[in-house]
Amino acid sequence: METRQGIATKEALDLQSVDQDLVQKMVYDALVWSSLHGLVVGDRSVQRSGKVPGVGLVHAPFALLPVSFPESHFREACELAPIFNELVDRVSLDGKFLQESLSRTKKVDPFTSRLLDIHSKMLELNKKEDIRLGLHRSDYMLDEQTKSLLQIEVNTISSSFSGLSCLVSELHRSLLIHYGERLGLDSKKVPGNSAVIQFAEAMAKAWTEYNNARGGQVIAVVYFRAGYAPTDYPSESEWRARLLMEQSSAVKCPSISYHLAGTKKIQQELAKPNVLERFLDNKEDIAKVRKCFAGLWSLDDSENVSKAIENPELYVMKPQREGGGNNIYGEDVKETLLRLKKDGTDEDAAYILMQRIFPSVSLTFLMRDGICHKDHAISELGIYGAYLRIKEKVIMNEQSGYLMRTKVASSNEGGVAAGFAVLDSLYLT
Amino acid sequence: METRQGIATKEALDLQSVDQDLVQKMVYDALVWSSLHGLVVGDRSVQRSGKVPGVGLVHAPFALLPVSFPESHFREACELAPIFNELVDRVSLDGKFLQESLSRTKKVDPFTSRLLDIHSKMLELNKKEDIRLGLHRSDYMLDEQTKSLLQIEVNTISSSFSGLSCLVSELHRSLLIHYGERLGLDSKKVPGNSAVIQFAEAMAKAWTEYNNARGGQVIAVVYFRAGYAPTDYPSESEWRARLLMEQSSAVKCPSISYHLAGTKKIQQELAKPNVLERFLDNKEDIAKVRKCFAGLWSLDDSENVSKAIENPELYVMKPQREGGGNNIYGEDVKETLLRLKKDGTDEDAAYILMQRIFPSVSLTFLMRDGICHKDHAISELGIYGAYLRIKEKVIMNEQSGYLMRTKVASSNEGGVAAGFAVLDSLYLT
Repeated sequence: METRQGIATKEALDLQSVDQDLVQKMVYDALVWSSLHGLVVGDRSVQRSGKVPGVGLVHAPFALLPVSFPESHFREACELAPIFNELVDRVSLDGKFLQESLSRTKKVDPFTSRLLDIHSKMLELNKKEDIRLGLHRSDYMLDEQTKSLLQIEVNTISSSFSGLSCLVSELHRSLLIHYGERLGLDSKKVPGNSAVIQFAEAMAKAWTEYNNARGGQVIAVVYFRAGYAPTDYPSESEWRARLLMEQSSAVKCPSISYHLAGTKKIQQELAKPNVLERFLDNKEDIAKVRKCFAGLWSLDDSENVSKAIENPELYVMKPQREGGGNNIYGEDVKETLLRLKKDGTDEDAAYILMQRIFPSVSLTFLMRDGICHKDHAISELGIYGAYLRIKEKVIMNEQSGYLMRTKVASSNEGGVAAGFAVLDSLYLT
Repeated sequence: METRQGIATKEALDLQSVDQDLVQKMVYDALVWSSLHGLVVGDRSVQRSGKVPGVGLVHAPFALLPVSFPESHFREACELAPIFNELVDRVSLDGKFLQESLSRTKKVDPFTSRLLDIHSKMLELNKKEDIRLGLHRSDYMLDEQTKSLLQIEVNTISSSFSGLSCLVSELHRSLLIHYGERLGLDSKKVPGNSAVIQFAEAMAKAWTEYNNARGGQVIAVVYFRAGYAPTDYPSESEWRARLLMEQSSAVKCPSISYHLAGTKKIQQELAKPNVLERFLDNKEDIAKVRKCFAGLWSLDDSENVSKAIENPELYVMKPQREGGGNNIYGEDVKETLLRLKKDGTDEDAAYILMQRIFPSVSLTFLMRDGICHKDHAISELGIYGAYLRIKEKVIMNEQSGYLMRTKVASSNEGGVAAGFAVLDSLYLT
């Protein structure tokens, strides 16, 4: 596969030099630790797994040791969390901006179209969400050449792995407490991670606030663990349920507006000149956010489309769909762009074009199904953010832990569940 | 199967009346809880399970709700723990008693014979164990008719389930915190259980004491997680290893003397008149211990052998072997006794005869492989005890948590690992 990344293994630890016996000991301890602490997932190869809880479990895929990451860039990403929380909230309040930005997408993407229909209905009803709860995760990669932290996307629905990510941080700390001295690594350099506790706290606070106002006995908080992919709506019933929840007075996590504010098209719109300024007041905040934006273009930007056809390896084409596994890379970018150009239909509106980011490559021990693989890998940092607001009062707006995902450098897609990546944590350098 | 137990369902909770929807909710929550908290074991149906940690996991078999148990009897069992700890230690010091009591067993049981050989060598060397560490579990059943707590056996090697038992107590507390009100049960009536922490603490203390005296860099503590069954010694290498460990100055948990002190033959010898008095000084302690002894006889006790042939359902025949699955019940008792009588060999010395205990039967929800079965079941209470002594100084002598095991009333054998029982905790009444 096309990995243009330089093999610049610049980790604090030189894995090549680690004694094989020591690796085997750590592998064994890490696997035992996983079983004892709930760092487990369903094993697809076991028939009833995923249908009956507690059956067919296997350790979650994880990196044996945390990936090195510059402390300054980690802090930078953490500082962005409350700003993105606020940005999502502001964008969500601008119904016209959401509808207009997504108007072309609506024509070609039936899924986004259905979401926009619900959103329209809420606008017609002039429905206000007094209590707004956001549990987001903004994902970044560190570009090797420019040494800059660039945003991949922001997730405003079903931000996953808050639970397992905490466990992987704990696992790595535990391994470094035992083996750190022999590896020359300090367990304290793995940052604490309380994502799952902070998310639970935010939900509990939303519940309390709702009940304080209304006095209990109705559903207070609706959390969406699904609903972000077309396959989550196999029939009209699911769409009716989604509408019903949106119409209710319950706190939705996310509301339809938060959901739409997290789409890739909106990400691309926000990257246009002078758009951030419509939603954020603080100039420093705007500068920080802009700094982390990679190049993002719509497919009616003929200049950048031409550039992408010329150098497709420098671009990624992303459809609106979530869940990983749908991005277009390399020669496929060129072919798809040429086909869309030739067709001349509106289908181009279903995609955005993004600058391809080339993070540094490190040698990593990746654990899956009890087996340890050594391979060159790249990492993606997710920063969780929790936001709770009641009318004009911000109750909670914080960075809430992190998720590191590491994937083999020759694989393009980043989804852990999709089978290409492992859960990881970070080692500050 | 022959269950003479009266179906006297006297639990605090009438399971028959529990709403099916509520049961399904609890089942689901309990299974999820198990995955999240490490209440898992290897799944034999998955090929690599048990060979590679972290692979092929399934929730441990457990009872959905704790079994009712009278608080007075629980306290009685807890109070016995330090007395049995002391008793095992005293018996272990009497090499002649161990050798003589087991002399007939030695002739017919090659396994016990090998253990006695090692013990003899230590006696010849006049080897003293200055630091003695005992991690025991004494098992009891509550006899329905006499309302008395009767000892099944004391385990002095590989006392298992200290880890999982704590988790089951936690699981039951957690379920009762959520559902207790609807069930009319109070989570506080599930006693706290810190068996695994107390066992770890005892081992750590033994390690510290050993190193204080010697200054590190050698093996300080040898813990036996195996070595109690003939199959653990497939060749002479294992026996040589056992001897080597015994000869070393390391703290053995257990030493060969502690191991032998926990055999069924010694249990039966201790039950003879005036034997306890050789090892314990305190008259109250002696009375407490004697009170929990069931009827125990050797097979050269012709009076009781005749009684057992007449009423075999009132007796159990137990071989020296550990691990469950080897006891003889019912008509088989009669047949085996008659055969041994006819043969006239020493083979009878491989068994002891024990009064059969009939505990009360309760309706129970047993969970295995993600499936909930409702059945009549009986329970066995294990009380852990930790003991650490350095010469004349007792560093630790305490009751250290508990294990409840519940099995379907129609099954005679009690081993959880053998597939007949589930892990449980208790609800004090």
